[in-house]
Amino acid sequence: MVKLVALYKHPEDFQAFDEHYFHVHTPLTKKMPGLLKLEVTRFTSTPMGDPSPYYLQATMYFKDKKALQESMMSPEGKAAAKDLMKFAGKLVTMIIGEEVDGEVK
Amino acid sequence: MVKLVALYKHPEDFQAFDEHYFHVHTPLTKKMPGLLKLEVTRFTSTPMGDPSPYYLQATMYFKDKKALQESMMSPEGKAAAKDLMKFAGKLVTMIIGEEVDGEVK
Repeated sequence: MVKLVALYKHPEDFQAFDEHYFHVHTPLTKKMPGLLKLEVTRFTSTPMGDPSPYYLQATMYFKDKKALQESMMSPEGKAAAKDLMKFAGKLVTMIIGEEVDGEVK
Repeated sequence: MVKLVALYKHPEDFQAFDEHYFHVHTPLTKKMPGLLKLEVTRFTSTPMGDPSPYYLQATMYFKDKKALQESMMSPEGKAAAKDLMKFAGKLVTMIIGEEVDGEVK
């Protein structure tokens, strides 16, 4: 399984961010071809009770790297990326990863 | 669902890190009571091909916040935390989060 991870820093306007994220951006993301699962996590704090360095994480699951690449290059993928840059370009860090449960390389 | 997320920066010695992570730390983590699932992601790059800011992510899933707190305070949780601080204290960022698929607050 290959994942596209989006880590969002804290927005200045939480309400405006949530409004756009859940009502505009998430629906666009869910249209991406080959997307097997979208998992959204809202961070609360560190285990020591300190503020979290990130506000939100979205993890998008794809079958393999080819499926992810094709999805990102699709019209739906480009529309989601364009929207992301517009509303959260300064907040988001995108990373590609592979699931490695227990594996040693 | 509540998650405990560990984000690891790149270690200086990848082989030593992997050896300890997969052979010592993961078995300790899997002993934590109430742990429903452990998902480990090895990051490769950003979508633009730049180096990832993080090396690895571990996501530990618990039923709710109470289950997570009890697990962290258990002998097994403390053993995993002690090991973590010893081998990756300078590399790791721990964050607690809640799954919010599609929710708007």
